[in-house]
Amino acid sequence: MTSILYEHPLNEKVRTYLRVEYLFQQVTKLLPLETEWQQQGFFTSLFSLIEVLERNDVRPDLIKDVERCESALVNWSRHPSISDDMLQTMLQKAVRLQSDLLRCSKFATSLKEDKFLAPLRQRFFIPGGTCYFDLPQLQYWFSQPLVQRKKAAQDWLEQLALVETAIAYVLTFIRERGQFQPLIAENGFFQSNTEQFELLRIEYSMEYQSYPTISGNRYRYAIRFMQLCDSLGRTTIDKAIPFKLACC
Amino acid sequence: MTSILYEHPLNEKVRTYLRVEYLFQQVTKLLPLETEWQQQGFFTSLFSLIEVLERNDVRPDLIKDVERCESALVNWSRHPSISDDMLQTMLQKAVRLQSDLLRCSKFATSLKEDKFLAPLRQRFFIPGGTCYFDLPQLQYWFSQPLVQRKKAAQDWLEQLALVETAIAYVLTFIRERGQFQPLIAENGFFQSNTEQFELLRIEYSMEYQSYPTISGNRYRYAIRFMQLCDSLGRTTIDKAIPFKLACC
Repeated sequence: MTSILYEHPLNEKVRTYLRVEYLFQQVTKLLPLETEWQQQGFFTSLFSLIEVLERNDVRPDLIKDVERCESALVNWSRHPSISDDMLQTMLQKAVRLQSDLLRCSKFATSLKEDKFLAPLRQRFFIPGGTCYFDLPQLQYWFSQPLVQRKKAAQDWLEQLALVETAIAYVLTFIRERGQFQPLIAENGFFQSNTEQFELLRIEYSMEYQSYPTISGNRYRYAIRFMQLCDSLGRTTIDKAIPFKLACC
Repeated sequence: MTSILYEHPLNEKVRTYLRVEYLFQQVTKLLPLETEWQQQGFFTSLFSLIEVLERNDVRPDLIKDVERCESALVNWSRHPSISDDMLQTMLQKAVRLQSDLLRCSKFATSLKEDKFLAPLRQRFFIPGGTCYFDLPQLQYWFSQPLVQRKKAAQDWLEQLALVETAIAYVLTFIRERGQFQPLIAENGFFQSNTEQFELLRIEYSMEYQSYPTISGNRYRYAIRFMQLCDSLGRTTIDKAIPFKLACC
């Protein structure tokens, strides 16, 4: 039976990291720009990305987290049984990321000021606000050669490459901190202490026709499995549900 | 050389009609729901559609416009040289639309209250607000069989079928009121009186590497051709630009 991997951040920092990672995945998938709707989706995701990066200055957090990764790597490298090649590559990457992050200014500034993007951006947050009579330049742009549009889109994303790489790097480390343990949610419910974890990862099977919702903070978290029900929306489930949990 | 058809509404009513028509096109194109990003796009468009229909009560305008179409058809049907079959079909459609519109309540009410859609809707207008940790039910829903998801999506759209049909009907009539005339925008500029037109349709060639922007009201309108310029965003153009215009 298919299983689903669900990730839940336990603090604002990781919440923002995951949000940015998700938007990068979305914008990259829509980059082909082949249809009109891919193009609309691409801009929606790009502008959401700019907005999230504008509202949350992830730079200081990233610098701290990359530093923490680096210290961990240095500690491991002292251990005689750990192979050196992979570790050295990771260490070099951490050092490079740190110096790049220290040198750069706010992430999305240049995109925010881009003369073509700025007038579009305002309208993409208005529901239904991106018709061609609102933005004739967008209709015109869509009729430009695909190669040219893709080039422009790649140039925009290139300006965000550092934050994309840094977040991917840090999230890999965070995710690798936890090992999956099999557990059972009695009556669809499970709770525990967080011991300052930052991210919960749950692998659950489609077999039980329910999905987890999590409430939690840095001290405690509770997982409640829910089911979708046509007439009532979502409701709790009172069966015992096996799942796997990794606390990272 | 490829040409582009650009439409500009001259009043709020037609503006809303075009907006709704555009969102229906978008939501229909995204209905395959095959990829995660199609699904995200589908919900974005569906919720924009509900929002636009909620904010603008198009029902009274549609009733009046369908009535106007009917009177025009009745007048034409008295003319001996006009073929009857097509006209009768159109007339029947007008009568049926009118009675359906008179009987129905506000368009998007049932969708607005849908127990599955309502919690999603709130988050789709927040930039980057639709990550799976915000909406675990959406991740779960995406893993349901495609047939089942499509069925649900079609059921939602079915509830908006009347407004889709009525707007398509009325817009066909509005568009057919105007005939394209070849014109020239000297120095990229053209202006004229509207004589209570509701919609301007412009066909322009990609050859001149510029696109039209229109400002106007019920008395006057001005068309100015613009070009995209990397460093400056958009700028005016001072060449003579041939185009075709239909005033509807």
